[in-house]
Amino acid sequence: MKAQVLHKYDEPLTAANWVQHEDVPDAKISKPTDVLVKIGGAGVCRTDLHIIEGQWRSRMDDNGGLLPFIMGHENAGWIEEVGSAVEGLKKGDPVILHPRISSGVEIEHRRGHDMHGSGTFPGVSENGGYAEALVTSVRNVVALPKSLEPKAVAAYADAGLTAYHVAKRAAQVLLPGQYVVAIGAGGLGHIGIQCLKAMCAAEIIVVDKSELALGLAKESGADHLVKADGNEVEAVMQITKGKGAEAVIDFVGEKGSTKKGIDMTRAGGNYHIVGYGENIVVPALDLITGEKNIIGNLVGTWADLNELMSLADRGLVHLATVEYALKDADKALHDLNAGKVKGRAILIP
Amino acid sequence: MKAQVLHKYDEPLTAANWVQHEDVPDAKISKPTDVLVKIGGAGVCRTDLHIIEGQWRSRMDDNGGLLPFIMGHENAGWIEEVGSAVEGLKKGDPVILHPRISSGVEIEHRRGHDMHGSGTFPGVSENGGYAEALVTSVRNVVALPKSLEPKAVAAYADAGLTAYHVAKRAAQVLLPGQYVVAIGAGGLGHIGIQCLKAMCAAEIIVVDKSELALGLAKESGADHLVKADGNEVEAVMQITKGKGAEAVIDFVGEKGSTKKGIDMTRAGGNYHIVGYGENIVVPALDLITGEKNIIGNLVGTWADLNELMSLADRGLVHLATVEYALKDADKALHDLNAGKVKGRAILIP
Amino acid sequence: MKAQVLHKYDEPLTAANWVQHEDVPDAKISKPTDVLVKIGGAGVCRTDLHIIEGQWRSRMDDNGGLLPFIMGHENAGWIEEVGSAVEGLKKGDPVILHPRISSGVEIEHRRGHDMHGSGTFPGVSENGGYAEALVTSVRNVVALPKSLEPKAVAAYADAGLTAYHVAKRAAQVLLPGQYVVAIGAGGLGHIGIQCLKAMCAAEIIVVDKSELALGLAKESGADHLVKADGNEVEAVMQITKGKGAEAVIDFVGEKGSTKKGIDMTRAGGNYHIVGYGENIVVPALDLITGEKNIIGNLVGTWADLNELMSLADRGLVHLATVEYALKDADKALHDLNAGKVKGRAILIP
Amino acid sequence: MKAQVLHKYDEPLTAANWVQHEDVPDAKISKPTDVLVKIGGAGVCRTDLHIIEGQWRSRMDDNGGLLPFIMGHENAGWIEEVGSAVEGLKKGDPVILHPRISSGVEIEHRRGHDMHGSGTFPGVSENGGYAEALVTSVRNVVALPKSLEPKAVAAYADAGLTAYHVAKRAAQVLLPGQYVVAIGAGGLGHIGIQCLKAMCAAEIIVVDKSELALGLAKESGADHLVKADGNEVEAVMQITKGKGAEAVIDFVGEKGSTKKGIDMTRAGGNYHIVGYGENIVVPALDLITGEKNIIGNLVGTWADLNELMSLADRGLVHLATVEYALKDADKALHDLNAGKVKGRAILIP
Repeated sequence: MKAQVLHKYDEPLTAANWVQHEDVPDAKISKPTDVLVKIGGAGVCRTDLHIIEGQWRSRMDDNGGLLPFIMGHENAGWIEEVGSAVEGLKKGDPVILHPRISSGVEIEHRRGHDMHGSGTFPGVSENGGYAEALVTSVRNVVALPKSLEPKAVAAYADAGLTAYHVAKRAAQVLLPGQYVVAIGAGGLGHIGIQCLKAMCAAEIIVVDKSELALGLAKESGADHLVKADGNEVEAVMQITKGKGAEAVIDFVGEKGSTKKGIDMTRAGGNYHIVGYGENIVVPALDLITGEKNIIGNLVGTWADLNELMSLADRGLVHLATVEYALKDADKALHDLNAGKVKGRAILIP
Repeated sequence: MKAQVLHKYDEPLTAANWVQHEDVPDAKISKPTDVLVKIGGAGVCRTDLHIIEGQWRSRMDDNGGLLPFIMGHENAGWIEEVGSAVEGLKKGDPVILHPRISSGVEIEHRRGHDMHGSGTFPGVSENGGYAEALVTSVRNVVALPKSLEPKAVAAYADAGLTAYHVAKRAAQVLLPGQYVVAIGAGGLGHIGIQCLKAMCAAEIIVVDKSELALGLAKESGADHLVKADGNEVEAVMQITKGKGAEAVIDFVGEKGSTKKGIDMTRAGGNYHIVGYGENIVVPALDLITGEKNIIGNLVGTWADLNELMSLADRGLVHLATVEYALKDADKALHDLNAGKVKGRAILIP
Repeated sequence: MKAQVLHKYDEPLTAANWVQHEDVPDAKISKPTDVLVKIGGAGVCRTDLHIIEGQWRSRMDDNGGLLPFIMGHENAGWIEEVGSAVEGLKKGDPVILHPRISSGVEIEHRRGHDMHGSGTFPGVSENGGYAEALVTSVRNVVALPKSLEPKAVAAYADAGLTAYHVAKRAAQVLLPGQYVVAIGAGGLGHIGIQCLKAMCAAEIIVVDKSELALGLAKESGADHLVKADGNEVEAVMQITKGKGAEAVIDFVGEKGSTKKGIDMTRAGGNYHIVGYGENIVVPALDLITGEKNIIGNLVGTWADLNELMSLADRGLVHLATVEYALKDADKALHDLNAGKVKGRAILIP
Repeated sequence: MKAQVLHKYDEPLTAANWVQHEDVPDAKISKPTDVLVKIGGAGVCRTDLHIIEGQWRSRMDDNGGLLPFIMGHENAGWIEEVGSAVEGLKKGDPVILHPRISSGVEIEHRRGHDMHGSGTFPGVSENGGYAEALVTSVRNVVALPKSLEPKAVAAYADAGLTAYHVAKRAAQVLLPGQYVVAIGAGGLGHIGIQCLKAMCAAEIIVVDKSELALGLAKESGADHLVKADGNEVEAVMQITKGKGAEAVIDFVGEKGSTKKGIDMTRAGGNYHIVGYGENIVVPALDLITGEKNIIGNLVGTWADLNELMSLADRGLVHLATVEYALKDADKALHDLNAGKVKGRAILIP
């Protein structure tokens, strides 16, 4: 089959060509619980650029040196073949793939926490979906409703799932009359805002330095827009009548956003960290006197992905995509790196 | 001051005149925590007809024989005067009154459960708001945002609060892809539907025997309408793919709705009871094999009423009202009894 | 292999002989996810008597007429062989078996609710553990700590799990200063009391008509004992200062216990139903004015069974057992029917 | 009345005399909701030493310069007189005082969060209980059961309450088979350990550098003791089979304990911060990949204090105290500073 293959790292992302369109051995079922999926669309994510840069090198080398490597951790398509222990799925069923293959027998997995315990991450810790097909486990497969085409939803598999997961956790304790801040209205943020809008009645404040992003935030359902111009904490305090927001979701996690995010969290409230890049530094005393919590968020569960597909099916969330042929993966990656992709780039085999 | 006074019970509601517009002693502050409120609007509720019928006689007689009695348990208006222990309220502030006066010192109240523990209920267990003014406690006062006129929101004080309370409890565990059924889209039901829409992304199924009510349900945000024609359980089962709904809210509670409501609840789900009139009869084995819960719901907390006012302030819930002058209370009651009131009748002093 | 086989129903349990010790085809692995378990102990449960009586006949006939049938739904033993898709288990590992084989791919199962969604129940809906070996699924296997012998824990697989599950649900919202009532201190009840003692600091009130059972309750950790002599509601009211208990767990569910249980539940509290036999009959109004909940309880999850094994491992729960050789199953069943078994009868192959 | 008065700060705590036993104006009721309490015992807390050092100077100066000042924020005694709006309390009733006077009308307070919203803190932000009597609000009074003497429980008012609050929050999500670490088994820690033991069945690991404290931890119910010798993270990892603990409670919060505490928290777990002194510094990425939470904890609610009194009443928690006459406050403070107080010093007027 055809796939896009990464043969060497490129730091600091200066090469004209990163991945090669080439023939690789066909993906094949080996375990009774395996599922072979014909790829309908594979999302191109900023993490892929970090992989090319070699930022994940040590982890990939731990796995035996993964190069040459097939990226792609946001995948959707159609069932092509199933292993002997797989029931209830048949050739042609449209599916989206949860990004993490969990063993299913650990207590974390039995409690529904698919992103904890042991597991692998196709496209990061083993070959992924920049290809015509992918072998995964029955545990990763989420059936798609008829309304949703694989290529239209592929990017929900990781970026969307992460945004949904944190929005759900925040929404479940947010009440009318309360406030939630989203720091960053980019790829994850604008999905998160739509999920919040669908799932709670708190007022949504969006903080971003880009006017374009704030415009997208407004379309996504934001009630208040705050330009990140250095005075965003004060602006949030003013909107929240001096108290701060009951929940803050930080989709940025760098360049000072963590301190600002904690500062704009109300006493007794939750600061959710999603984006990363910097250290969180906070006096223990500040968390205590404000009884504030810092909540870590990681991807989401298999059930979360089902729930997100329900929102998409009903038109409650929408994701802008730009299609590229699989053979043009290199162009998609360079466009992403150059900031030229509006929405999410999707590779179509 | 002027008030509408009930002098004798009338069972079975045949008299041409039930309440008298007359002069009564002015409402006056007696305790340091008292608040004197000038009534801006008092909701006319079906419970008031039951009081006139004498259905609450035994309870009212326990309180020393309350006749002559001033009804009115859904009140909003403006602060007129406050007791010496009251801080933060001043003459002219617009307010809505939580219907139950709780002591505030019992552990239920300290945990926020204002409808549990000991308390009184103006308009039912002591004189209420069919008058120019009412004395209540500082604990009952909820400040109104500027957008909300007392007469426009008075009916939220009990009917709306009850609908909000149950919708909130249901919404907090409802997820996208799940279903919630509202049985009955009348006064409480149509508020409940709007609250569900604002607070969760479950699909809302509304069951009612009236086409008019189903039309109101659709405007209120219902996703599926089911005519209560005897086959409503089957209809809900079909919509929910044979599984039933994760939550059922029964605003009716009589004429067989309780059995049907439990039957249309999914395994592991919650059947919320709000309306009443009949016995719930269910084999213990059925609740066990389906691991179903029956959840009792009673009015709501002071915080709930604040949250509901936030929804109203933002236009997320809307309540139709019909205004009557206080002197026309008798007409309002007769109109209500005759089914001639579209929305909620409000008395304006 | 040897097994005890039921060839015909006996209503009303008068036959001298119910099951036959005979040779049956060896249990064998057929699916990649199958696990073959050598039985170390199989609990003898009152449900088995109901199966013999034919009370489950219609359900078993739905499965194609199950007679001749091997009972036994409380099983523990050692891994003998595993299917090709099973990882992490090897011959000789001591295990206890969750009683329900869930598919693992339905959303209920992915959320951890192993007793909801589709599944089978060995010993009830298909052949069980009154035998030398049993084939089950990898999803049912819970590894045992070294401290626990299979024959000592077999009865936890269903009776113990049910008691743990309800105690856990009650304990998670019970606070110091509150009360929990256990109605019935028999097989399930005395495990439930120990679990409550281990997991919360509410005061435990036990209601039973048998002095012997009350004695066992005291040893199990009960703080207050109430003889069920017709005045048990009043007795509980007196202990709880007239308010009732925040949680009531009804292990009986018949002969009037359901009404009494609801009556002794405090406003805002939970009445948990576990035992069954009668209809629950309660005015809707009573649940509303007291804002009481009726909570259905069904067996427990795979994670619950792990948690219970932790309690047993640490000596926090203890279960009295009486051993019988597998060939003496008929005697064990007759002894149980005659009320001669102190603790739980366990069949040892 | 007699009181111990602080006239000037002493940094760095070298003076031979800090507080003066002198006559001050009698404490008197001024507001209708006031309560005058005759002090039965006042706890001497390390915070009092920090007040003497001037660490709270800026905050106290904000309140108008509080010197001369009466310390004492852990108070219990008997009702002496109540204001006109106070019901249900009478002279001679034994009581313990919640340390924070909340207004009661803010939404935080109506939801039960007495330590959020506006309020004052007698003994820190206004005169406290190092005196024969104290005026407080009816909102702070918790009635004592007969078994508990004011002087025996005074120290629960702040130190005990804080330990209970965090233990309760941790216990409510801890399950059998899980682990909880307490870092620090001093004044708060040893109460927290007893509360955990009473309220959950997780295994308790205690980390402390002092053998004496570890001995106290064992008596308090610890299951595993870890000497804080620099390898405490590894020791906890070994006990928890390489996964870390589902909950970590850090009663220390300085000298590197925060990093160690987060490192020994399991993926998906909660690190609770109680003690303070240093900055928490953690890469955002670490909280995300481990989906860990940092939970701030502040004193506790009025209901929490009631619950703790129930535990004390039933003998489930025990607090060692050393009595000093009020006139010997200075000696108690110096003994505390010198590390000579075993248990909690209590001043008795």
